[in-house]
Amino acid sequence: MSDIDEIIKALTEFRDARDWKQFHDSKNLASAIAIEAGELNELFLWKNKLQEIESVNKERLSEELADVFSFAFLLADKNNLNVKEIILKKIDLNDKKYPVEKAKGTSKKYNEL
Amino acid sequence: MSDIDEIIKALTEFRDARDWKQFHDSKNLASAIAIEAGELNELFLWKNKLQEIESVNKERLSEELADVFSFAFLLADKNNLNVKEIILKKIDLNDKKYPVEKAKGTSKKYNEL
Amino acid sequence: MSDIDEIIKALTEFRDARDWKQFHDSKNLASAIAIEAGELNELFLWKNKLQEIESVNKERLSEELADVFSFAFLLADKNNLNVKEIILKKIDLNDKKYPVEKAKGTSKKYNEL
Amino acid sequence: MSDIDEIIKALTEFRDARDWKQFHDSKNLASAIAIEAGELNELFLWKNKLQEIESVNKERLSEELADVFSFAFLLADKNNLNVKEIILKKIDLNDKKYPVEKAKGTSKKYNEL
Repeated sequence: MSDIDEIIKALTEFRDARDWKQFHDSKNLASAIAIEAGELNELFLWKNKLQEIESVNKERLSEELADVFSFAFLLADKNNLNVKEIILKKIDLNDKKYPVEKAKGTSKKYNEL
Repeated sequence: MSDIDEIIKALTEFRDARDWKQFHDSKNLASAIAIEAGELNELFLWKNKLQEIESVNKERLSEELADVFSFAFLLADKNNLNVKEIILKKIDLNDKKYPVEKAKGTSKKYNEL
Repeated sequence: MSDIDEIIKALTEFRDARDWKQFHDSKNLASAIAIEAGELNELFLWKNKLQEIESVNKERLSEELADVFSFAFLLADKNNLNVKEIILKKIDLNDKKYPVEKAKGTSKKYNEL
Repeated sequence: MSDIDEIIKALTEFRDARDWKQFHDSKNLASAIAIEAGELNELFLWKNKLQEIESVNKERLSEELADVFSFAFLLADKNNLNVKEIILKKIDLNDKKYPVEKAKGTSKKYNEL
């Protein structure tokens, strides 16, 4: 079993043991991702120095990031999306939106390149 | 190479070809996750009927979810976090916060169980 | 003094008594708005029935919404933006993006009308 | 009429001309706030230098911030919350959570003071 299949299996077993599938429509899962992303961002709030930013508590970072990932994997699973496939496909799209010769070394958005 | 290693390799190669590592501190990556989560949620905005929610455009859903995943994998990689490990560990923590006998069939938060 | 001036005065006095202006650059204030918006959304997570949604705890709703407003007013003040003016101006813009005859009774985005 | 009453009147007239009240339950309004907060944050993404952050396009900042405010005022109105009151009340609460003598000059969260 691949890493990703193992993750999804663990998440869906946890969910099903609690009979939570009934709450996991795609809209609520998307909302849960945004809520957890908010908690993740709170770890960095008011921190501006790189050293402070990169010395954030790793335990809390792991937990908040794990929450984002968990709901993202559950939303992918709910919609029968293959996570590796959709990411590789998006990289291909971004390769066209951000051609190396234009995008190298700049953080501009594609419509400003 | 595992699925996840393959994903991270593709993402970091895309990033490095554009010399974008300089922009990818943990705070900006966390912010990027939240921004993409916002775009993901926009797909579901004002939709309340389950049928509408679950018939959202799969192409756009794939792209927005892929964006969330991409920045989440980059943030994990930046902090040397093993994605499978942090998720399985968080499931263990949640197993204690949400014991099956209390949490079964309810969407209450752990501090309200 | 107008209501809004009074609000901004109370917020900046609270801030200045704590010498917090140094942390309140526009990027962190924008991030704070998103974080508080996440907490606001958590009140509604997993709730799908209108009756459940609209009977959410009013005390907690008031507090989370007040947090969103507070950072939004501080960001406006930081950038010398007149809150009433920018909202009325945005309504004018939206009036063109969403003409009544096309937008009436539909929740479609302007680019799908 | 107070500034805030004028804003809410303009927003609800715009809404009612389009028959959009039917879509504006509290959960969707909260989601709209988070989505607009994401767009607001995108203006600052990848910008780390204070000078870059504070020279963000004022027109776009005004529009994104106006969107956040608009849905926040609509959510307050939907729940009969007086915006000035809930903010002043939250400042009182924060006054206790962040006493001046402990909180002065530090960006720590109240539970870390």
